[in-house]
Amino acid sequence: MADAPAVVRDVAALRRQVAAWKQQGLSVALVPTMGALHRGHAALMARAHTLARRVVATIFVNPTQFGPHEDFAAYPRQEARDLALLAEAGVHLLYAPNVGVMYPPGFATTVRVAGLTEMLCGLVRPGHFDGVATVVTKLVLQAQPDVALFGEKDYQQLAVIRRCAADLDIPVRIVGVPTVREADGLALSSRNAYLSAAERAVAPALYRAIVAAAAGIAAGADPAAATAAAREAILAAGFGAVDYVEARRADTLAPLARGERPGRVLAAARLGRARLIDNVEI
Amino acid sequence: MADAPAVVRDVAALRRQVAAWKQQGLSVALVPTMGALHRGHAALMARAHTLARRVVATIFVNPTQFGPHEDFAAYPRQEARDLALLAEAGVHLLYAPNVGVMYPPGFATTVRVAGLTEMLCGLVRPGHFDGVATVVTKLVLQAQPDVALFGEKDYQQLAVIRRCAADLDIPVRIVGVPTVREADGLALSSRNAYLSAAERAVAPALYRAIVAAAAGIAAGADPAAATAAAREAILAAGFGAVDYVEARRADTLAPLARGERPGRVLAAARLGRARLIDNVEI
Repeated sequence: MADAPAVVRDVAALRRQVAAWKQQGLSVALVPTMGALHRGHAALMARAHTLARRVVATIFVNPTQFGPHEDFAAYPRQEARDLALLAEAGVHLLYAPNVGVMYPPGFATTVRVAGLTEMLCGLVRPGHFDGVATVVTKLVLQAQPDVALFGEKDYQQLAVIRRCAADLDIPVRIVGVPTVREADGLALSSRNAYLSAAERAVAPALYRAIVAAAAGIAAGADPAAATAAAREAILAAGFGAVDYVEARRADTLAPLARGERPGRVLAAARLGRARLIDNVEI
Repeated sequence: MADAPAVVRDVAALRRQVAAWKQQGLSVALVPTMGALHRGHAALMARAHTLARRVVATIFVNPTQFGPHEDFAAYPRQEARDLALLAEAGVHLLYAPNVGVMYPPGFATTVRVAGLTEMLCGLVRPGHFDGVATVVTKLVLQAQPDVALFGEKDYQQLAVIRRCAADLDIPVRIVGVPTVREADGLALSSRNAYLSAAERAVAPALYRAIVAAAAGIAAGADPAAATAAAREAILAAGFGAVDYVEARRADTLAPLARGERPGRVLAAARLGRARLIDNVEI
């Protein structure tokens, strides 16, 4: 059993450790998470080890990226279990600040990415990506890593973070890591814990539907027709509602013209009290 | 005659020079400006030399902090003359990017500080401080200095930048430098160049009025009465309009209660085609 990483909870302690590593010529990777870690996060950590000599994970359930009627209070918090996974993953340091460290009294600043945040999940979750862009900017500037890794599962989030880091000249390399899936295709997500056994059986229909749409579009189908069919399939499988199924350009997330590449099919749908999202390459 | 500083116009060249200095253990100060340099800027550079071993000035007339009906096109641009002042001031490097370097196609990110930007100049210049916070965040993250200096002449701007840097955990020390004045009290400003000879004779009334208000408040006068009297005095002297004269807390810029300290009197008023701002300590 590997040793659990050291845990720091304030910016000064985080910076001291990172500065000490840099002093020794050791590169540093940052893996921001909200905890409730699973094999998808482990893949981020594994990739981080290939890119830097030291790996710092963060756990922070960021209140500003949850809407007033979303699952901030219910979001799973299990630091002791998470530490075991981080130990297995060979993570060197866990940064787990509390809300007061991240947003002290008087905090007033928001980082906003126009365009990319006003579509797809941004329409259903107003303010969500402002919260993401702000907290990621903070975490990266707190830790000052050489590279920061994010899952492609949250593809729109990754696009927002890439745009924000480039636009603000944040001195870090942003790396996306492919989604990890269950054997039946369901993308790993901390929110899968919200699914009942019956819902869990229905859940992989989301992935199957977007894979079919992507294959159709790759074979020449009209993107609008292919995504409409996917929407029907998701509802027919037993999802309660479909927020969107869209074929988009992989970089700007603008609507994908027929034949345009690289593209991505992205979807979000409701199943019981869970809201599941997924995406695949075209 | 001192040598003119080297000039770089892109982020990579800027970072190479700063990294080389840091490699040699030399600390770095950044002095962001919009050019049209005067003795006020020279005071910033002089102070920078006391805080760091290398001084980088920037000249960038930032379009995003000008409103559609403001003086972006008219704002004085005189890089050759500015270089002479930078040489005299012993500045080691000038970073003078063009708009395409700062805002390449696809740029979409804004840094916004709530509260502080929604009062005083923020009411008259909507979006101005978003432009300031965004460009300063970029310049600091591009250069990665140890310290960045800003004039107290733009006191609200300084408060916004302090708040933004603290909130986003930008790894830099922000230093404010006292306003430099003409013999008659007029605060040095690149926009004083807009004044006719007659207007120039009227202009010091702004400073005299806020000094009187600050002295009155310090002696126990009601802040609202003292600032109302200053407003009258500024208009009586020949200013065309007063945007505001306000007594505020020095940190949050919230309205100042009688007896509350530290405080600041801040004012903005129109004179010919110039809009002059000034502020003094109470």
